[in-house]
Amino acid sequence: MKPIPKSKYKLAPLLAFGAHPDDIEFGCGGVIARETRAGRAAHFVICSRGEAGTHGTPKQRVAEARKAAALLGATIEIIELDGDAHLEIRTAHAIKLAGILRRVRPGIVLAPSLVENQHPDHAKLGRIVRDAARLARYGGLKELRRSPPHAIEKLFYYAVTSEAEPRDLSPVLVDISAPGIVATWTAAMEAHVSQTSARNYVELQIARTRLNGLRAGSSHAIALFPNDPLVVESLAQLSRGARRF
Amino acid sequence: MKPIPKSKYKLAPLLAFGAHPDDIEFGCGGVIARETRAGRAAHFVICSRGEAGTHGTPKQRVAEARKAAALLGATIEIIELDGDAHLEIRTAHAIKLAGILRRVRPGIVLAPSLVENQHPDHAKLGRIVRDAARLARYGGLKELRRSPPHAIEKLFYYAVTSEAEPRDLSPVLVDISAPGIVATWTAAMEAHVSQTSARNYVELQIARTRLNGLRAGSSHAIALFPNDPLVVESLAQLSRGARRF
Amino acid sequence: MKPIPKSKYKLAPLLAFGAHPDDIEFGCGGVIARETRAGRAAHFVICSRGEAGTHGTPKQRVAEARKAAALLGATIEIIELDGDAHLEIRTAHAIKLAGILRRVRPGIVLAPSLVENQHPDHAKLGRIVRDAARLARYGGLKELRRSPPHAIEKLFYYAVTSEAEPRDLSPVLVDISAPGIVATWTAAMEAHVSQTSARNYVELQIARTRLNGLRAGSSHAIALFPNDPLVVESLAQLSRGARRF
Amino acid sequence: MKPIPKSKYKLAPLLAFGAHPDDIEFGCGGVIARETRAGRAAHFVICSRGEAGTHGTPKQRVAEARKAAALLGATIEIIELDGDAHLEIRTAHAIKLAGILRRVRPGIVLAPSLVENQHPDHAKLGRIVRDAARLARYGGLKELRRSPPHAIEKLFYYAVTSEAEPRDLSPVLVDISAPGIVATWTAAMEAHVSQTSARNYVELQIARTRLNGLRAGSSHAIALFPNDPLVVESLAQLSRGARRF
Amino acid sequence: MKPIPKSKYKLAPLLAFGAHPDDIEFGCGGVIARETRAGRAAHFVICSRGEAGTHGTPKQRVAEARKAAALLGATIEIIELDGDAHLEIRTAHAIKLAGILRRVRPGIVLAPSLVENQHPDHAKLGRIVRDAARLARYGGLKELRRSPPHAIEKLFYYAVTSEAEPRDLSPVLVDISAPGIVATWTAAMEAHVSQTSARNYVELQIARTRLNGLRAGSSHAIALFPNDPLVVESLAQLSRGARRF
Amino acid sequence: MKPIPKSKYKLAPLLAFGAHPDDIEFGCGGVIARETRAGRAAHFVICSRGEAGTHGTPKQRVAEARKAAALLGATIEIIELDGDAHLEIRTAHAIKLAGILRRVRPGIVLAPSLVENQHPDHAKLGRIVRDAARLARYGGLKELRRSPPHAIEKLFYYAVTSEAEPRDLSPVLVDISAPGIVATWTAAMEAHVSQTSARNYVELQIARTRLNGLRAGSSHAIALFPNDPLVVESLAQLSRGARRF
Repeated sequence: MKPIPKSKYKLAPLLAFGAHPDDIEFGCGGVIARETRAGRAAHFVICSRGEAGTHGTPKQRVAEARKAAALLGATIEIIELDGDAHLEIRTAHAIKLAGILRRVRPGIVLAPSLVENQHPDHAKLGRIVRDAARLARYGGLKELRRSPPHAIEKLFYYAVTSEAEPRDLSPVLVDISAPGIVATWTAAMEAHVSQTSARNYVELQIARTRLNGLRAGSSHAIALFPNDPLVVESLAQLSRGARRF
Repeated sequence: MKPIPKSKYKLAPLLAFGAHPDDIEFGCGGVIARETRAGRAAHFVICSRGEAGTHGTPKQRVAEARKAAALLGATIEIIELDGDAHLEIRTAHAIKLAGILRRVRPGIVLAPSLVENQHPDHAKLGRIVRDAARLARYGGLKELRRSPPHAIEKLFYYAVTSEAEPRDLSPVLVDISAPGIVATWTAAMEAHVSQTSARNYVELQIARTRLNGLRAGSSHAIALFPNDPLVVESLAQLSRGARRF
Repeated sequence: MKPIPKSKYKLAPLLAFGAHPDDIEFGCGGVIARETRAGRAAHFVICSRGEAGTHGTPKQRVAEARKAAALLGATIEIIELDGDAHLEIRTAHAIKLAGILRRVRPGIVLAPSLVENQHPDHAKLGRIVRDAARLARYGGLKELRRSPPHAIEKLFYYAVTSEAEPRDLSPVLVDISAPGIVATWTAAMEAHVSQTSARNYVELQIARTRLNGLRAGSSHAIALFPNDPLVVESLAQLSRGARRF
Repeated sequence: MKPIPKSKYKLAPLLAFGAHPDDIEFGCGGVIARETRAGRAAHFVICSRGEAGTHGTPKQRVAEARKAAALLGATIEIIELDGDAHLEIRTAHAIKLAGILRRVRPGIVLAPSLVENQHPDHAKLGRIVRDAARLARYGGLKELRRSPPHAIEKLFYYAVTSEAEPRDLSPVLVDISAPGIVATWTAAMEAHVSQTSARNYVELQIARTRLNGLRAGSSHAIALFPNDPLVVESLAQLSRGARRF
Repeated sequence: MKPIPKSKYKLAPLLAFGAHPDDIEFGCGGVIARETRAGRAAHFVICSRGEAGTHGTPKQRVAEARKAAALLGATIEIIELDGDAHLEIRTAHAIKLAGILRRVRPGIVLAPSLVENQHPDHAKLGRIVRDAARLARYGGLKELRRSPPHAIEKLFYYAVTSEAEPRDLSPVLVDISAPGIVATWTAAMEAHVSQTSARNYVELQIARTRLNGLRAGSSHAIALFPNDPLVVESLAQLSRGARRF
Repeated sequence: MKPIPKSKYKLAPLLAFGAHPDDIEFGCGGVIARETRAGRAAHFVICSRGEAGTHGTPKQRVAEARKAAALLGATIEIIELDGDAHLEIRTAHAIKLAGILRRVRPGIVLAPSLVENQHPDHAKLGRIVRDAARLARYGGLKELRRSPPHAIEKLFYYAVTSEAEPRDLSPVLVDISAPGIVATWTAAMEAHVSQTSARNYVELQIARTRLNGLRAGSSHAIALFPNDPLVVESLAQLSRGARRF
């Protein structure tokens, strides 16, 4: 577990979408911490103010999200789609997100998984982001005429709970055992005071990460699920595998 | 498509298993060419002389395999299990292969896929190799007491035909479009004269590779199927994805 | 096959949703008969009047549904969503059904399966009910501010035909061989005269039930499909299994 | 590879749906050529003018589609749903397509596959067509009161790319090696000049067809994916299988 | 339901394998009756005498099998592998069956399904037959040197119970509603007196067939599961589909 | 979390099979503790002495297993099959285990899961136990002539690691939050000193149990995987479901 060197190449930004103010942090905050530490820019797009949740006011929750993003080294914006617990799958939403993709021009995109048996907004947002990533490439889309098309490199899904992990996609385990990453991530989760005071979400996430770490031969790891096959130029890029037990 | 630089780090060797003298070449020869070009050592273990095939004598087929391995920059050995078309799943075989794994001490292992609806020897060998990779790690195995345990880094499956591609594992596409790789690979396949004169196997493989290349945004690519989740330390290792159509 | 004793504990009510006036009866009427016989309250919510069907007027069909519900010992209400064969997946529908869940406060909920290759209204209603069961728990949903949140215990899917049986969920077989259950159920199905006079639906359901009964070691059984893992406090709750052939 | 005799029986028409002006040709044009050659009438319904694509104006693209349909011996109509890249799953669309099914009264229907990870319009159209094929049978649908119900015989999905091939449906391989079929098909694909000049789509499709041909023991074959089980009166109808490698 | 005309072409024989004396009759006897009625030769290979079953002596059971085969118009032979309830997956068995395939030279082969959760002999025999069908084609197999290689046309699996139906292969429904077929089949099942007197196997099979018939739009149908994609020269061969409910 | 009352009815014994001395404890020890606490007899059959493992001598490991079984309130026997890391799937093994099933006559049987990508002995033992449970029912098996046939009620699989959890079977979550159960289980795991001193297996299992507990709405739960559908006489048996996040 050696410190993470800043990359000497400029890394394309990472863009993460969340349906609610805390989804990104709970689902993949450790990966964000890892990437920003290495010098990659990260930007969050939050698609509701969490106004249908049992705990916390919209104002509180947005403030918590801003604090958490800052802790993770990410910028953040809040957008309006249909409101918390009201999200619908609409092409207009996909075009709106495609416009953001063309503006931010990320290499890597993170979105909630498509598994339906979770908060309904999560899987819907995942599908909207997936479609947005295609639409961002099509030159003739009149609503986006002013911004040049953009092709992302990779779309990964994150899972806010174990139930949301796709069973038909092989995971990639991101090792987050480098010093300070788990601490930063934990702080970002705990910034969502309105949520963590009600339920033991932080423990849930750390337990998942420990299990994946044990699989990966490190102390902590987070599973991401690539939407499309990975492409490598050499197997040297894939020198580690998870098979420790 | 720039030339492939020799790696400045020493890469752990690659070890590929084939049930018949031509399986490795037809299933993943382009990947072998790519890796040896970059300076990685590669070794082939062939588990029969192809004596049950319709075309070619065992002597001819072994000579073809030796020629092909040389063209790909790999060393080769022929071992005896149960004979062509007679392979059985036996622990004794897995222990024998585990012994080879402890001797060669590879980072990456390649084996035929586990899909059963193909030549029966292929899926059986894949399962034997998978189990061998575990046994190689166990310290108390008395048959292997003399060689120290070894844990491989990654086991990938290759598919000799489209039918053999696993549907439950997400593929990794290895870009083989660098200059000369496809030509070297084709020469290695054509070294199996006894087989290629009877059926158009080379065209089959090149067509598959073109389709995967079109997915990967390059001219040619080969799909491998990782047995276990990939582990990365940074998403920068996975900067490309297949989503071109 | 001994008679069913009334439960001495008060059982939480069962709430069943049907897209058309006869779906609940044909899909799981035998289970309803079994549960009401044991003293559990059952309530049906029918989401159209069957006005797009080939046989029967809306008025006839509603009358048939009321008669069938009475035979099964259930109460019934008819609600308006988008009309027969016009159902759309809308959050507004899920919120409406969540309101009903908060009013009825059931332990067990039954809904048509999510398999899409059947009457389009069935799978859509199944998804709306699944999402409604989540929304019913969220405290901040402004449309439902007046009724306290409610968490159901279990959501089961029923399949109106064999095609609609999910392949990715393990079934639970409910033994309905106790005296009188099949007769009551058959009477309830036959109450849908407009439908049964046109096609042999009753025979279809009884044949399915006989097959499941043979699996379960009883004369008749109905398969339900739990949306979430079952939770037990002891294996004594699960003392029977289906493995008779 | 003997010439295709005109059928002496009148074959029920084939109806193919495409989301964009070139989808049918690229996805299953060879099958169309094969069927019209045998005397079956074929009709295309194109659901957008391709106005969101990167290449070609709507006017050009419609002209290309008309030319391609004529080369394949098919009639064609262009309809308006939500526009290219804007398609939504709406019951109103399914009813509109059900009206076309009642007018054309086909035996065989072709639609894009339901796999979601492709152009979003494709999977959506596939689902709309599948639902339309059910609605076309229901007698009480008031919007379609004037046209008598119609039950199609078979719904097949086609896949515009390998990614779109369903993994949960067993394919049927249609042998298109009879003289002239591939040439006619290629001409129809090349009629889409605005598309083929930008990317090597024709090579992609021919490579896929060669691979399927090698599986089927012929020079070229196209995979279709039946939505429902096939029904035969005798195994003599199924005298060939794909198992050549 | 018109009578079945004798085919004017000579149909390649059908070869069915059963692990026990009654498996073929219970699993697919109706298909056998249908095919022999049309003039196709059928041959049964029974791989044990049922000596581990609870009911019937080996002698009785073989006599029952001979009677049933005669009723279905099939010839029969009994072979020895490892004995009832003792079958192992051995290459020697696959080669033995490959020898039978080369002798009988069938077009169509029927074998028990590969689903493992049934009588262990069934799935094992299915796998042995599948591998035998490949080995029968390989020219160099020394044990079979005296008989010329043979490539079958199609391998179908049958399922003795619902549990044994594969979930990953799309079924083909064989309509057996032509006059007399069900009666002949029932007589063949009832010839297994030692089995049918103990359990209601005949009712089980007829119920399954009725359900498949209702799917197929006929009175009775049997589901078979093709091991490999079907190949057709025209969609006219597939003019019927199952989608009646 | 109230104390567990002794059952007033006599519960059929539980029989658990382990490939190595610690598999049962690590895979499902908490369930054993829960069941014996309620008065159910439990018996362990251990099929090797762990002699191929990296840590611990066979003598030590057997002693650890005996101590752990005693802590869990279970009896134990050690049997010889092919030795640690040498297990083969043989009918003779299945018959041997069927003999044990006839002797112990359990209601519930626990075996390692069938997922192949784990220690090879685990999946093999799972398959042998599954087949043994069928053979135990067949009256004519000559090796077991002296003991009367026995039909178990339920076969559940346990998973020693997350990787071994079957993806095609819906889990049942057993709540083990009653006082003292986790402590007893932990003591039993820690009895395997030779293993726990080398790796953090106990933490791994507790983390898994916490995650399942969070799903189940309790502090700790263990997932078991039923081989066959559950059969219930009333939905009152299934009054809890896992859907807490």
